[in-house]
Amino acid sequence: MRGISILGSTGSIGCATLDVIARHPDRFRVVALAARGTRIEELRRQVRDFRPRLVALEEVGAWEALSRDPDFEGIEVEVGPEAARQAAAAEGAELVMAAMAGSAGLIPAVDALRAGKDLALANKEALVLGGGMLLAEAEAHGVEIRPVDSEHSALFQALGGREAVGVRRLILTASGGPFRNRPLESLSKVTPEEALDHPVWKMGAKVTVDSATLMNKGLEVIEARWLFDVPPERISVAVHPEGAVHGIVEFLDGSMLAQMGSPDMRGPIAYALSCPERIDAGLKRLDLTELGTLTFEAPDLTRFRCLALARQALQAGHAAVITLCAADEVAVDAFLAGTLRFDLIPAVVEATLEKTPPGEPASLGDVQQFLEEARTRAEHRVESLGQ
Amino acid sequence: MRGISILGSTGSIGCATLDVIARHPDRFRVVALAARGTRIEELRRQVRDFRPRLVALEEVGAWEALSRDPDFEGIEVEVGPEAARQAAAAEGAELVMAAMAGSAGLIPAVDALRAGKDLALANKEALVLGGGMLLAEAEAHGVEIRPVDSEHSALFQALGGREAVGVRRLILTASGGPFRNRPLESLSKVTPEEALDHPVWKMGAKVTVDSATLMNKGLEVIEARWLFDVPPERISVAVHPEGAVHGIVEFLDGSMLAQMGSPDMRGPIAYALSCPERIDAGLKRLDLTELGTLTFEAPDLTRFRCLALARQALQAGHAAVITLCAADEVAVDAFLAGTLRFDLIPAVVEATLEKTPPGEPASLGDVQQFLEEARTRAEHRVESLGQ
Repeated sequence: MRGISILGSTGSIGCATLDVIARHPDRFRVVALAARGTRIEELRRQVRDFRPRLVALEEVGAWEALSRDPDFEGIEVEVGPEAARQAAAAEGAELVMAAMAGSAGLIPAVDALRAGKDLALANKEALVLGGGMLLAEAEAHGVEIRPVDSEHSALFQALGGREAVGVRRLILTASGGPFRNRPLESLSKVTPEEALDHPVWKMGAKVTVDSATLMNKGLEVIEARWLFDVPPERISVAVHPEGAVHGIVEFLDGSMLAQMGSPDMRGPIAYALSCPERIDAGLKRLDLTELGTLTFEAPDLTRFRCLALARQALQAGHAAVITLCAADEVAVDAFLAGTLRFDLIPAVVEATLEKTPPGEPASLGDVQQFLEEARTRAEHRVESLGQ
Repeated sequence: MRGISILGSTGSIGCATLDVIARHPDRFRVVALAARGTRIEELRRQVRDFRPRLVALEEVGAWEALSRDPDFEGIEVEVGPEAARQAAAAEGAELVMAAMAGSAGLIPAVDALRAGKDLALANKEALVLGGGMLLAEAEAHGVEIRPVDSEHSALFQALGGREAVGVRRLILTASGGPFRNRPLESLSKVTPEEALDHPVWKMGAKVTVDSATLMNKGLEVIEARWLFDVPPERISVAVHPEGAVHGIVEFLDGSMLAQMGSPDMRGPIAYALSCPERIDAGLKRLDLTELGTLTFEAPDLTRFRCLALARQALQAGHAAVITLCAADEVAVDAFLAGTLRFDLIPAVVEATLEKTPPGEPASLGDVQQFLEEARTRAEHRVESLGQ
């Protein structure tokens, strides 16, 4: 029985993780759940079904609503903005699923590694913001980071658990999002509703908008750089609208291994929980002869300016990457709130990047500081560009 | 330095193997070459360039032409129908590339395993005729069989050197050959020249005709069954005309790993020589965004009757498989000699299969006997159907 702690249990990855775990009660035991507290009914159901030892709740108000719930009797509850850190280091957990959204995921991910837990990493920002720090922590504590992003899981699977030696190139595929073929000049009119209608994947709001701008793919290039320790110029992106191939490793001998599967996060989640073993995760089988055709094209960097900006930031250094990440969070929030046009998201990111301060962060504390400062700069930019 | 012995050195796989070896003089040393003796100039050049310790020549006449050649001075030469067996067991060879054509490849392949050599297996018939015997020999002598067929190499690579556990299905791709879209009734008019014009691969005559009938794919299903120890119903075939994807492993969790690459046998050869390391083999890089589209379809078993017959034979047992293999050799020879119509190749195989004698072979001697008897029955069939 592997003890599992889930950070972000009521989000889409958290729920999918519990779906996989429920299929294998003989293999996994839920030790801790951490949630924001915005989906109380879901959390209550999870506690009833999985009986964790510990529940961590970010919002104090949520606990007021739950504290007299009989389902929570006998369960240790931590409340507050730091509560997730307790779940990350929970005793009895061997693997932590880090599925909190956004930059808040970095610190608990590091906590998990420092507590000697294997880390199933669904949170993009942890590797993007942490850069090489995360891998160094994993190495120092003799634990593994297993990617849960479908693209990185694809590369992880294609590498067969080995390091990226003999590799010429890593290729991340991108569906191209809902606006791949839409006239460029009409992008100023995109509504949040349209941007949230992803053609292939059902995901959270931030990552769905990032998929429409391809910033998501840019962040994934950065993640891949750190996760597989491969220089940026050996990581490419191919637009693949069918969303069947998730990632491709090209080896020195010209051979390529491509991972394919239904677009269902339970696949990468199950692999992260049980690799190198394969376990049923409830996925629909992908029938290639039914699918018929797979297409690949180079991404249009004029249309998808965010992808180019992400690559620029990666070349520029750690401070630029943090700035990129912060500016994108701010810009996407503003777009979703109706205060920034869709086509101005890259403009906010670019302008904020241009003002990246000199110097590089030397610690996690520095990372937080760079992040806060970049956010403030981005907010000013949104205000000046906003409607 | 790995010592290598090459059986069938002047054939297309043999020449490609030497091309790969020539790129890595620091890794590989040619210890022995075995050839039929039909391409004397090629053999002379190989001996000059690679200076093997031993040369094995099947045809006595060929040696008469070479014996006074100064290039052969100081080189041990074995001549005669059994000469290849000396090369298979040659001292100093750690790996034997078994690239002889046809059923003659079985005995030397077994010799190599018994002599404790790893076997790079390009000869289809060895696994098809030997069935489980080959794997048992490999296990008994603590050596490895590494496939050189592009499809099996693809599966071997996708499995990452692990046994086929957690596997739901192995998928072999087939280009569909030159007659995939040709009107069925016109297949009676196919000439040897047309059948030898394969759309993707340049190969020897027998295997090219087998590719046009898809018997090749049928034999590969049988090979895969033994090589990976997977039951036949879990091995499928998908027609994939672009020839970029060579094989796909579908795992229990719904994930698939597909191996892709330029259709160049130096890829699988290099992997068999050096796995798990990747070495340059001179392959053209495959650019998916240039290729653009990959298509997959189910094979048409009416058009490709030989594929259905191969599956039937595999279900029926070892004697039926040997019969299939013998009948196909005889029928293809007759077609190439102009004495059998292309569309009657499956008819000869089917009629010969129907007369498979009861009982199963218990030894390699039995295999040879079943093979001879089936050949005789197939020859009678060709005579009665022939022009």
